[in-house]
Amino acid sequence: MSQSILHPGAVILSAATVVGGKEHDGPLGAHFDFFNGNDRFGQDTWEKAESEMQRMALSAALSKADVTPDAVDMLFAGDLLNQCVGSSYGLLSYDVPYFGLYGACSTSAEGLILAASMIGGGHAHRAAVVTSSHNAAAERQFRTPLEYGGQRPPTGQWTVTGAGAFLLAEAATREDPALALVTHAMPGIVVDLGISDANHMGAAMAPAAVSTLTRYLEQSGSAPGDYDLIVTGDLGWEGSRILCDLMAAKGMDISPIHNDCGKMIFSRNTQDTHCGGSGCGCAAVVLGGYLLPMLQRGDLKRILFMATGAMMSPDSVKQGQTIPGVAHLLCLESPTLRPTQSPTQ
Amino acid sequence: MSQSILHPGAVILSAATVVGGKEHDGPLGAHFDFFNGNDRFGQDTWEKAESEMQRMALSAALSKADVTPDAVDMLFAGDLLNQCVGSSYGLLSYDVPYFGLYGACSTSAEGLILAASMIGGGHAHRAAVVTSSHNAAAERQFRTPLEYGGQRPPTGQWTVTGAGAFLLAEAATREDPALALVTHAMPGIVVDLGISDANHMGAAMAPAAVSTLTRYLEQSGSAPGDYDLIVTGDLGWEGSRILCDLMAAKGMDISPIHNDCGKMIFSRNTQDTHCGGSGCGCAAVVLGGYLLPMLQRGDLKRILFMATGAMMSPDSVKQGQTIPGVAHLLCLESPTLRPTQSPTQ
Repeated sequence: MSQSILHPGAVILSAATVVGGKEHDGPLGAHFDFFNGNDRFGQDTWEKAESEMQRMALSAALSKADVTPDAVDMLFAGDLLNQCVGSSYGLLSYDVPYFGLYGACSTSAEGLILAASMIGGGHAHRAAVVTSSHNAAAERQFRTPLEYGGQRPPTGQWTVTGAGAFLLAEAATREDPALALVTHAMPGIVVDLGISDANHMGAAMAPAAVSTLTRYLEQSGSAPGDYDLIVTGDLGWEGSRILCDLMAAKGMDISPIHNDCGKMIFSRNTQDTHCGGSGCGCAAVVLGGYLLPMLQRGDLKRILFMATGAMMSPDSVKQGQTIPGVAHLLCLESPTLRPTQSPTQ
Repeated sequence: MSQSILHPGAVILSAATVVGGKEHDGPLGAHFDFFNGNDRFGQDTWEKAESEMQRMALSAALSKADVTPDAVDMLFAGDLLNQCVGSSYGLLSYDVPYFGLYGACSTSAEGLILAASMIGGGHAHRAAVVTSSHNAAAERQFRTPLEYGGQRPPTGQWTVTGAGAFLLAEAATREDPALALVTHAMPGIVVDLGISDANHMGAAMAPAAVSTLTRYLEQSGSAPGDYDLIVTGDLGWEGSRILCDLMAAKGMDISPIHNDCGKMIFSRNTQDTHCGGSGCGCAAVVLGGYLLPMLQRGDLKRILFMATGAMMSPDSVKQGQTIPGVAHLLCLESPTLRPTQSPTQ
């Protein structure tokens, strides 16, 4: 069958997360490895700060697994900046074969699918995935510089300052247990239902999430209730509501087990981000800092992680084009479910 | 061994190329499938014209192989435009799982490596790769709009207006022979030796080509003379000279068998492109329109195709950063060498 579920066959050995001040102050703040209160990370531009976050995240992820860069076969990385310079400069000091990705806010899942598939296909023993976003760099590129003090509409989301790095391998060992097993994946099809408001990304991306999730559930023969959590990133409050409504219209109520990284990372009551977080870094740090440790401990047994991206540019919107969305899905299992910690056994 | 040669295990079933007027007027003009003399492709913006070229290229590649989109398991695509909108909008009408790439002018090789590896790893039966560039869209984004008539320095290259699409599969059949077999691949490491002149890309990318080519020759135990052609894309005239000099300094004279897509696509004497062609579309259309048919016929038996990318952005250059380069390599063999036309047998 064409376009079917992938069986990647890899484990996530380690993850590391780096965030800015606002993310550190949020409900998940204590779960992230590093933060910098002024979001500068010792750099003189926001773009360089984003690169520095990527460097820190990958360095920490490798350290946690006690793996040196020369033992990593390939890197998958991307970000929101034009020409993905957050990644190309951030990871320049690593002499590791480099595959640059552009999946907007879906990049974490896109990279995890490709890394796990390259390992499962016998092309790599270990592969790393790194992605990031930086609020100040993204806002001045996509909308206006923060100094302008532009007003944000209620449907707007807040680009997360954060970077996440993941190290994947063929199998874990008793001494070096996995955080999670990547058992299945469903890459997303680009969907555009005609949303043209760049401050309403959740609405643009929700139909892509519906497309991917529906195809996955159909092909796997599973139901939403078979998972402890179906977590998207980053539809925010508005997009999440739309996703649940669209799924309900298909006869599937996912609302009891659905959550969204953009909803989880900021406090809706006290942090004034309107519809929640967004940006490549959002889903990456929530997965790396919060969800993977829960999978490792067995507090979550089996989840669907689905990162969503809006694939427009400021220029395409100015030219009157609508906003295409994409959603890449992974099924992640707790290693407590499988004592050997190898997804292929 | 880490970071070793990949054995993708796939064949290129078909390819299609779309170019602009200047490329049609060049020495390879007769080899491309479609051209539009005014580079507009019926669209009202250059960016939409680029998307239209991608759509045409993929449509033609699928038609040539008599394959429908629903029989394609995944697409790998990217371009030079901010947020890669040439690809996301260009391929929107194809309901095929989509992996967005950013590898600058190395995107064709990056995509071919990933597509072939996903097939070889058992994750896909068929995968397509699409990439493009458009002179007018790229110039106004990276440098200045063409209407300004800005002067170009002698080391400058000319962004090609072109799109190439490739369809890969597990194996060819007697009825449907392959254009070429993807037998080996070596993904590139990002290298930055300190070039900061955005009008001297060849110099920025040549060291990356040296890095990848040297690692490949060492690990494969092969010598330049084992190949009919070592073709880069797109170092241009200046970068090609630097590559040959740097390889000679390592004791390997590749100059008799080296050529560069940026040198091949335009006439140096009559087309005034200074150092030759560049852009994601350059290597893609030269490979798809000219080199693959030569491999299919057996006029070339075994070549190394190495697309090179400069991973900076206009902003990173303005912020004083130097230009990182990357080069991804594939070894392509003529199907006339292997009657079964499956690289894994």
